Amino acid sequence: MTVHDDAVRHRETVLGLWAACQDRDWTRYADHFAPDLVCDIWQTRELVRGRADWVRFNAEYPGDWRIEVVRVVTDGDGAVSWVRVHVGDQHMTGVSFFTFAPDGRVSRIDDHWPEPYDPPAGREHLVERY
Amino acid sequence: MTVHDDAVRHRETVLGLWAACQDRDWTRYADHFAPDLVCDIWQTRELVRGRADWVRFNAEYPGDWRIEVVRVVTDGDGAVSWVRVHVGDQHMTGVSFFTFAPDGRVSRIDDHWPEPYDPPAGREHLVERY
Repeated sequence: MTVHDDAVRHRETVLGLWAACQDRDWTRYADHFAPDLVCDIWQTRELVRGRADWVRFNAEYPGDWRIEVVRVVTDGDGAVSWVRVHVGDQHMTGVSFFTFAPDGRVSRIDDHWPEPYDPPAGREHLVERY
Repeated sequence: MTVHDDAVRHRETVLGLWAACQDRDWTRYADHFAPDLVCDIWQTRELVRGRADWVRFNAEYPGDWRIEVVRVVTDGDGAVSWVRVHVGDQHMTGVSFFTFAPDGRVSRIDDHWPEPYDPPAGREHLVERY
């Protein structure tokens, strides 16, 4: 396998796991992850250990959410996805860094879920607000 | 140029711009960006338009900050970096999605600077806090 083959395979894995999540197909979703998966959720300083709990974490996530994949970048070593999760008129941003086991399953996720906040003062001369 | 060549070139560009930023070498930093660069800073809903203002935005950023590049993922289309910015005992996380002009310079940045917050209730049975 070349670096490019691995990057293509990682892209398919990332798109596949988000599609399975959107479909609430938790058996198919689980198959994208190594049994000893660790997910580190940085902003809330939470660790989820093991595929079973990770699948429950997602299956139990409240609300009638819809996932929009904005962008996926992959290389031979890993992958990143940027998603928007829409729940009614609430829109969340998620950025996930994926690490892969040799068999191609995801072995680690570093998850960032940034929330909106106001900019610090002092840079108004350089920016446009929207 | 193959997809792999582009991915390698994009990695060099991303590592180069962070190194120039860390060195406060604003001439070298500027050379990584297209003149009509747009930077969209999602959490604060700010747009910086043009390379000149983007360089000033960074040059004027307060504090004696130090940049640590945690991870860079690149492919033929784009790149992502995850950095930590250390200012005294404050540690910020930045995730930047880069889009490139045909000449290899960065034409767009989608910047996420997630801040810490407390997790929602109801998932304590699935996570470990740290």
